Parts: sequence; C-alpha cells; structure tokens
Amino acid sequence: MFILVNLKTYPCDPVAVAEAVRDVDEKTDARLAVAPQDAHVERVAATGVETWAQHVDPIDHGSNTGHALAESLAEAGAEGTLINHSEKRLKLADIDGSIRAAERAGLETIVCANNPAQIGASAALGPDAVAVEPPELIGTGTPVSQADPDVVEDAVDAADGVDDDVSVLCGAGISTGEDVVSAADLGAEGVLLASGVAKADDPAAALADLVDPL
Amino acid sequence: MFILVNLKTYPCDPVAVAEAVRDVDEKTDARLAVAPQDAHVERVAATGVETWAQHVDPIDHGSNTGHALAESLAEAGAEGTLINHSEKRLKLADIDGSIRAAERAGLETIVCANNPAQIGASAALGPDAVAVEPPELIGTGTPVSQADPDVVEDAVDAADGVDDDVSVLCGAGISTGEDVVSAADLGAEGVLLASGVAKADDPAAALADLVDPL
Amino acid sequence: MFILVNLKTYPCDPVAVAEAVRDVDEKTDARLAVAPQDAHVERVAATGVETWAQHVDPIDHGSNTGHALAESLAEAGAEGTLINHSEKRLKLADIDGSIRAAERAGLETIVCANNPAQIGASAALGPDAVAVEPPELIGTGTPVSQADPDVVEDAVDAADGVDDDVSVLCGAGISTGEDVVSAADLGAEGVLLASGVAKADDPAAALADLVDPL
Amino acid sequence: MFILVNLKTYPCDPVAVAEAVRDVDEKTDARLAVAPQDAHVERVAATGVETWAQHVDPIDHGSNTGHALAESLAEAGAEGTLINHSEKRLKLADIDGSIRAAERAGLETIVCANNPAQIGASAALGPDAVAVEPPELIGTGTPVSQADPDVVEDAVDAADGVDDDVSVLCGAGISTGEDVVSAADLGAEGVLLASGVAKADDPAAALADLVDPL
Repeated sequence: MFILVNLKTYPCDPVAVAEAVRDVDEKTDARLAVAPQDAHVERVAATGVETWAQHVDPIDHGSNTGHALAESLAEAGAEGTLINHSEKRLKLADIDGSIRAAERAGLETIVCANNPAQIGASAALGPDAVAVEPPELIGTGTPVSQADPDVVEDAVDAADGVDDDVSVLCGAGISTGEDVVSAADLGAEGVLLASGVAKADDPAAALADLVDPL
Repeated sequence: MFILVNLKTYPCDPVAVAEAVRDVDEKTDARLAVAPQDAHVERVAATGVETWAQHVDPIDHGSNTGHALAESLAEAGAEGTLINHSEKRLKLADIDGSIRAAERAGLETIVCANNPAQIGASAALGPDAVAVEPPELIGTGTPVSQADPDVVEDAVDAADGVDDDVSVLCGAGISTGEDVVSAADLGAEGVLLASGVAKADDPAAALADLVDPL
Repeated sequence: MFILVNLKTYPCDPVAVAEAVRDVDEKTDARLAVAPQDAHVERVAATGVETWAQHVDPIDHGSNTGHALAESLAEAGAEGTLINHSEKRLKLADIDGSIRAAERAGLETIVCANNPAQIGASAALGPDAVAVEPPELIGTGTPVSQADPDVVEDAVDAADGVDDDVSVLCGAGISTGEDVVSAADLGAEGVLLASGVAKADDPAAALADLVDPL
Repeated sequence: MFILVNLKTYPCDPVAVAEAVRDVDEKTDARLAVAPQDAHVERVAATGVETWAQHVDPIDHGSNTGHALAESLAEAGAEGTLINHSEKRLKLADIDGSIRAAERAGLETIVCANNPAQIGASAALGPDAVAVEPPELIGTGTPVSQADPDVVEDAVDAADGVDDDVSVLCGAGISTGEDVVSAADLGAEGVLLASGVAKADDPAAALADLVDPL
C-alpha cells in the first residue's frame, strides 16, 4: 500500500512531517512518501524520506518564468509528482505534457481525477498511477471508501478497462487505518492523505495509527 | 463520411456558406454540417443545414455570465458541438462536464485532441466521436492523412481500444476530395474542415470537389 | 442612470425580458439595456431594446474556434459589452485586448471588478465605464449600496483618480428602486442587475418599481 | 539602477549565476538580484545574493496543492517576486491577490505588463514597481530601449499618472551596458534581464560589462 502525504500549502513544518513519515516508513511494510511545496523539496528530500512534487508543468528547459520544471524538482530530490490535483486542474493536453515532462526527468506520476470516467481518461495517457478524489469529499474527514465506495471500485474498473498496468489510488477524507484498509479492500493500491496527517498535533502518531492495520 | 465545416471567427458570410453546405449535402451520400459562431447559430440553422456549435461550457442554467449554455444553443438550432478544439483547449474535468452538458441538451459531441494518447483519453469520457488534429498541421493546407498518416491510424486504434462505439474523425490541412478519401482509408469516419471551405472564393464549388470522390 | 439587466444563463425567456426592458425604457428617463447570451443577441436586438453582450474575447477575425468576436456580436445587434464579469474573469492583458476588440467593433465597454483597487486598474485601460461588484454580494439580494457603501464611493474615487472620463457603475444585490437611488447618491452613474429582474415573475413590474423613484 | 536577472527554467547552474550576480553586486553601485525557480530559492539565497521569486499565487496557507505560497518563498530566502510575467499572465483579480499575498509575506513586488496602458493598470494596484516588457521583443536581443523607446517613456508617464510612488523598470532584449544606460535615460529605474546573463558562457563577465557604464 502506497501512502502519499500531501502538505499542500499548510502551515506545518515540512521537515518535521517528513521526518515523521520517514520514521514510520521504516517500521512498516507500506510505502510512505510526502509531497511538500516546491520551495521545500530539497530540505524535505534531505531527510531521506521519499519526496514527491505536487505538480509539474508541461514544459522543458527554456523561457518559462514562474513554472515548475520536472528536471529541477528531480534534481532537488523529488522522485514522483502529482498531476492534475483537484486544486490544480489542468487542460487535457497539459496533463499529457506534464506526464511526458515527468517521465523525461525520471519522476513517477500520479494523475488525479474526480470520477471514474476521468480516471479512465487519465489512465489512457499512460501515467504510473491514477487517483480518484471526489472533490466534494476533500477535506471533509468523511472517507471516500465509506461515503462513496462505488466510486473507488468503478475507478479501478475504469482504469483496468483502459490499461491494467496503471495503479489506482484514492483520496479525500481518509484519516484512519480503517479507511486505508477499506480503500485496499475496494481495490485501491494506495491513498492520498493531507490534513489528517499534516494538520495533526502529532503527525508521527497519526501515521502510526494509519499504518497499524496494514 | 461526416464532413463538418468549422467557420471559426473567419470573416465569411455564415449564411452563404451554410447554404452551400446544405445544397451540396442534398446531392451527396456524405453527411455535411457547419459550425458557426454562437451569434450566428440561429440564422445558420434557419437555412436548414445541420448546425453545430464550436464549444459549450460545462455549466447548467444559472449565474454564468459570458458562457455558452448547451440548452440555448440547442434551442437556437444546434444539433451538435465541438468540445476541446485546439483553439479552445479545456481542462479534463471540463471536457467531461461539457460532454454531460451537451448530452443533457440533446447535442451530439465531438471531442478534439492532439494525438492518439489524448484521443484515447477523450474516448474514455464517452462522447459520440473524437477528432484527432495535430496542432502543427492546422491551417497549413498539408493534410494530416498525408503528412502523418500514422497519427490517424493510431488514433483509430486508441479510441477502439477504449470504446469502439466512439467514432473517429480527423482534421488539419484537409482541403481536397483526395484528402477525404485518404482519411477514410485510414479509418476515419469523418473530417473537420475550416479554411479550405470557409475561405474559398466559391465555397459550394470547394465542397462539391471535396465530396466528388466519395 | 444606466440600468443594465444581465440575463446570464438564466432559464428566462430572453425576448420577453427584452420586451419588458424596452417598454419600461420608453416610459422613463433612465437608460435601460439587456445583456442576453450570444445565441440570443440577434433575437433580443430585434425587439428594439438596447442590447449588450456579456463578454467579448480579445481576438480579431481568424482561427479562433469557440470564441466571441466583437464584430459578430455588433453585427447581430449588440451596442456594448461587459468585460471581466466576476463569472468570467480575464487576464489583465486580455481585458486590454477585449476593450480594443470592442472599440474596433463600435461596442461600448463596461469592465467589471471586485474592489476599488481593481476599479482603478480597469479605468487605466480606458473603457467607457467600470462596474464595481463585490463578489460576496452577487446574487444575495443585499445591495452593495447598503452592505458596503464605502466600496462604491471608493470605486468612484479610484476611477476618478485615474481617468475621470470613465463612468462608474455598481452591482451586486440590487433589486429595488431604493437601491438604485442609493447607488446614485454614492456617485454611481448606473447599476448592473441580474436575478432581481431576470428571475422575477413579472419582469416588467420589477423594472417599473426599480425606475419609479428616478 | 536595479538589475534583476530572471533565470526562468533555463538549463543554467543557478548557484553559479547567483554567485556571479553577488560578486558583481559588491563592486558596483547598481543593485543586483536574481530570480531562480522555486526549487532553487533556498540554495540561491544561501549564496548571499538578493533573491527573488518568479511568481507567487494569490493564496494563503491552506488547501492549495501545486501553488506558490509567498510565505514559503520568503522563508526560503526570497526578498521579492515578479508577478504577471508575460510567460505567466494572471487574471486582474489574481494580480491584485498576488500583490496582497506578497505584501503579507514581506516580499517586494514588480508587476510586469505589455504596454503603457497595462502598466497604468498595474500601478493602480499598488505594487512597489512595474516593468514594461513588449512581448514581441522578449528574447530577441533587440533592446526595448532601442526598438521602441516610446514604450518606455509612455510606461513611465502612465505609472506616474496613476501613482508616482511606483517605480518603473523595463525589459525585453536588454544585454549590454549601453542598453541599461538607454533605459535609465528613458526614465526606467531598473531592468529585467534573462538570457543575456543566464545563457552567457561567462555570466560574471556579462554582468560586469552590463554595470560598467553605470
């Protein structure tokens, strides 16, 4: 099970959360990683934790002021990147371009999408993984695996129908180990987390609870 | 074979082109249609030609100033709509939303995309058809079926691999009957045309040449 | 006083509202106009009412699929256009381009903005008028002139400080004649209305009440 | 004279350029700074050079995956930020929001714009400075101060007419000390540079030539 902790632009200490993720990762069979802001990637990666970017732009080296270049994030220590998160929705052509940019730089890719139809579409672009996150559940504390289990199973079916090499994750509202187990039972190979860990008083304890049942 | 003439914002007389399309349509087995600007849909549809919109927004009735509502275009006479044309690229979630809006209003849908991977993605969203138009060939006069025949065949394969109920069209650079025949030979069920007809001195003659070999 | 009724994509009969606006306009000293969807401009203008577009794109004739061309809207009967409505926010460079496009086609321009600073910025681009509409009040029924009178006066000051040839209108929550009088008292030369008229059971009666105190 | 070297996403070594900028800054009366990619801000700032961001988003701490937060860039060592660069054009409301975000984090602001009208508009939003860069000259090697001197003088007039506390810089095609002197003669208080330094074989020598006539 892959657990990716998205730090968004939360007012947390990215290095402290990274160290917590790293420490829990060493004690569990699950694979844990953290996605900080671009300005924090180097410091977070220096902790030894698996580090992901939150976004890369569909660009190459060149005249692209204010853009996120996959090569620079990889060189700073990122090993993967989210693409098309619901808080950073992209044009279809740019999702394709961002996957190509990430591949070029050796970054693993997870394309996020709202529903099974968009998951099928995302899978057709050939990323490493897709993640279904119903926007109405993000940040609610109500896990998608409980509020809308069909959406996870349908997403798995949609991705498999297009390309069964593409892994399926789910996100939105996941905060307990039980939620992670439910997600796995529905066919998800991983989960996206955010506030449940990043805003926890004790991120290490929150993560330990989360991986405990795995 | 479906031939859709996109009038973009060309300085042509939309009613004159519409009448030419209608007249040629009556004399051929091909299915011809024309896509005028929103402000011209009603006048164009009044000629009796099959009329398409160039875009619909992923919205419903409500507070959406400056948007194209599928219901209003349908009521004005449109029977279908392009979505995600390379000159009006949309976010993945909005392509999905625009297809749903069009379906709700009874409009047929063609989703445009740049390459076979994006065609597969578009097909996964369940439109009636997809159209592959390599952006670098649009407006060149060099037909995609000649410049890059593989892209048409690969697009047909990509769409079929996802959903073989979705028709595949191609566009970019098509201006002669020979180009249309080549497109059909490569597996396309239709073509998108623009300047070759809309900017012709005699649109009716240009269209007659185009459908002659069919 | 200029009263512009924005029909957005409301499920109203645009011609019926247009006729009501036209009839009330003939009986009052105020100047009334209506802004329908693009697909309705021609039919609405045919009623004889002053007709506005809700948006124009920063483009010219050419390869611009799915865009709103100022010339086509003018030819269909529009006499002016909103630009940068809060439901159709534009890049700064595109507001500039849309004003130029509208001028080229002979359309009067009103640039909308959220607050006095943005009103000053909009006035610096040289439109005919600007309209301040605090987004949090749009559609509330609480008039800006009552909820936040300072924002109207500050907008008038901001516009005057930049270019006192630019008229200032206000919008958001205006639904009664008293609201219109308050707006005028605060220095506004016009108001933007929407649901108060477009969604009224009897648009003509709603408008008659609105202009009664003028 | 303020000289800001924008590293865009060029394939240069950001630390090497930063050290060159720092070294030349220590030997001249001009003020020099460098704007690296977000992922490089911390390493660049560690050289001691004045460091700028290329962009900040109009957001606060919170759920904003894939966005550039002013506070994080400031904490990583940035002292200022470009906003609305021609390669990262923003909506008017978002330029306003990005200036507010930068102010909140203590970052100095330069808003870029295409022409004098947009410079006036940008100045009305109250940034520390504005920079006029005609898009058609960016990357050409033909300096704006020579190709279109009026645009610089008109930009100075436009900004002064709105708020004479706002400094005016210019950019596009500047690569020699003579270009910088011309810009100053036209009223600019600074220049934006990019390829002329970032792509130079010897950035330190390029910069030394640039500040030599000052």
